[in-house]
Amino acid sequence: MENYFKTRRSVRRYSGKPVPTEMLTEMLVEASQAPTTGNMQLYSVVVTRSDHGKTALAPAHFNQPAVTGCDTLLTFCADYNRFVKWCRASNAVPGYDNFQSFMTAVLDTVIVAQQFCTIAEMRGLGTCYMGTTTYNAPMIGQILGLPELVVPVVTVTLGWPEGEAPLSDRLAPEAFVHIEKYNNPDESRVKEFYAAKEARDDSRRFVAENGKETLAQVFTDVRYTRAACEEFSRIYYDYISSKGFKFPVD
Amino acid sequence: MENYFKTRRSVRRYSGKPVPTEMLTEMLVEASQAPTTGNMQLYSVVVTRSDHGKTALAPAHFNQPAVTGCDTLLTFCADYNRFVKWCRASNAVPGYDNFQSFMTAVLDTVIVAQQFCTIAEMRGLGTCYMGTTTYNAPMIGQILGLPELVVPVVTVTLGWPEGEAPLSDRLAPEAFVHIEKYNNPDESRVKEFYAAKEARDDSRRFVAENGKETLAQVFTDVRYTRAACEEFSRIYYDYISSKGFKFPVD
Repeated sequence: MENYFKTRRSVRRYSGKPVPTEMLTEMLVEASQAPTTGNMQLYSVVVTRSDHGKTALAPAHFNQPAVTGCDTLLTFCADYNRFVKWCRASNAVPGYDNFQSFMTAVLDTVIVAQQFCTIAEMRGLGTCYMGTTTYNAPMIGQILGLPELVVPVVTVTLGWPEGEAPLSDRLAPEAFVHIEKYNNPDESRVKEFYAAKEARDDSRRFVAENGKETLAQVFTDVRYTRAACEEFSRIYYDYISSKGFKFPVD
Repeated sequence: MENYFKTRRSVRRYSGKPVPTEMLTEMLVEASQAPTTGNMQLYSVVVTRSDHGKTALAPAHFNQPAVTGCDTLLTFCADYNRFVKWCRASNAVPGYDNFQSFMTAVLDTVIVAQQFCTIAEMRGLGTCYMGTTTYNAPMIGQILGLPELVVPVVTVTLGWPEGEAPLSDRLAPEAFVHIEKYNNPDESRVKEFYAAKEARDDSRRFVAENGKETLAQVFTDVRYTRAACEEFSRIYYDYISSKGFKFPVD
């Protein structure tokens, strides 16, 4: 059990063996016992199992092969739609069209998504998060028919693993654990935190393949550029606002 | 194992038995194997174990007894500080002072927090999220000494359980699972989803104690009012901006 957590890995390649529908439902029910703010369950999960559904969503995830190659794609959405309708049907006046409520729903959504992944992985299934959901939320929302106060937050691919996925390296705990106060490290100390990562063969290969000088440059110049981050900031921000969560602006 | 997920519960009352430091570190290391965007680990965990530290943080969590009653309080923060310093120390120019980057770090943070909770609970420990972290982030940030590009997102209390915590009810899966498309329910259908919850003895008691007509009114008029949501929206939004994540505004 402990071993599972230490060696957990993301799975991007899946065998064609189907995940039984009953098993999927059971796992979603178990996941819903995860913590949720005030027991409001401010999320929805849209389950995509059809080939045409996965094909339609693939471009939103930049055609990562796991999207069409998985058994099931799960789009976890921050959802105040249901809760607000319940309020309206109960003679209660909701005030959840704001940034704080959006954030609360995001927390609920990610908590249940991660609980679902753990449950699935402990049953031998493989999962992988698609980091593209907050980039292309408008496209995803349109395909899935998301109404007001529903915003996609994370997408998970699910299926039986094909082959063994690699184990990712992680920073040592001194890099991310702080005792009592934030121990604000200087650049040279931070550089030490990343020394082992930079020395890895796969990191060096990554730098060479991308024609860069340093591993960090692969992130800033190739994978997560300022231009892309700023463009997707605008798109996600506008989309969230368009779905009814108003941002506080003077 | 499956049983654990089905019956998992939040624990707010703790025995005085200490959590060994080695065990705490081990659990944080295991949790760090959780999924993270591009293996960037955009989070930090500030661990509060001292009495004076917990006492200082208690007002930020509206003096919920679990904060001073727990063995350890863990504040999980979205953190681009470390990553950006690494970029600067590596001749790379980071562009992560934006809303999309903030959201990415929030996802990483909640994923590792939830993985930590599961790991702790599977070892027999109890945990509870404090939903107050996004409300009083400025106070928490000041106490913990959080620098630029670090924003508190969720707080978890940890300790050995005292007594048995109650199991919370949850909505049936038809309320939150959607197949292929979002099945946009009307108010009467939503009312059905909440019927079992409204019929519970503890719900009825909750309504009566608060002098309300419906359970939903307890949420809108007492627990999560428009005035509070809007005030805390402004506070969190301003705090995130002050920490260097600029929101896209025309």
